[in-house]
Amino acid sequence: MNDKVDLAAKLALLEGPYKPGVVGYLNDYKLAVVKLKGEFVWHKHDDTDDFFLVLHGRITIQLRDRDVVLNEGELFVVPRGVEHCPKADEEAHVLLIEPRGTVNTGDAGGELTAEEVEI
Amino acid sequence: MNDKVDLAAKLALLEGPYKPGVVGYLNDYKLAVVKLKGEFVWHKHDDTDDFFLVLHGRITIQLRDRDVVLNEGELFVVPRGVEHCPKADEEAHVLLIEPRGTVNTGDAGGELTAEEVEI
Repeated sequence: MNDKVDLAAKLALLEGPYKPGVVGYLNDYKLAVVKLKGEFVWHKHDDTDDFFLVLHGRITIQLRDRDVVLNEGELFVVPRGVEHCPKADEEAHVLLIEPRGTVNTGDAGGELTAEEVEI
Repeated sequence: MNDKVDLAAKLALLEGPYKPGVVGYLNDYKLAVVKLKGEFVWHKHDDTDDFFLVLHGRITIQLRDRDVVLNEGELFVVPRGVEHCPKADEEAHVLLIEPRGTVNTGDAGGELTAEEVEI
């Protein structure tokens, strides 16, 4: 965890969508890569903003009042407390940054909740 | 600052190397883009790790005991307290993430010290 990280190589290790892999840390934040395909789950994080940077493909972050469409090289920070639901029609690759311990499904829980796994 | 950010478009607004532009925030962290060309200055941050993600080109983060060469799509987190000096032979583009208020030149100061400017 103290060497450089090739994000594409890390993404190749992931088995399927919505199973993030932690690739490093920045102070008390985790740096994770994740594949998106299909729709995630509506949720929010009351205690933290939520960072998304698209590395490959295109995603839509659905908010209750609008959609934010992100292409490769575009980032968006979902403010804390704001409900959102990411989706991707085709497989897309994303860098996520959140405080360690942040649960991927936020307040929603459910079967898409994933452990923090280092890859 | 609450909409999506096209990193390449933001980088096009920068006038020269080593003049970062803040493009957003993640909680109490700033998200900044910067162009690198030539050598920066040896410095360290005693209170924070230092996040580098190469968006375009290639950079070398010189450490006292080794060089870390980063190509596009590769990231490296310089641990707090570790002296480092970034450089790039050709212009390269980088995403930086650090706590707000972190001075770009750390403990070194000098003429390359830049204000936190939102772009």
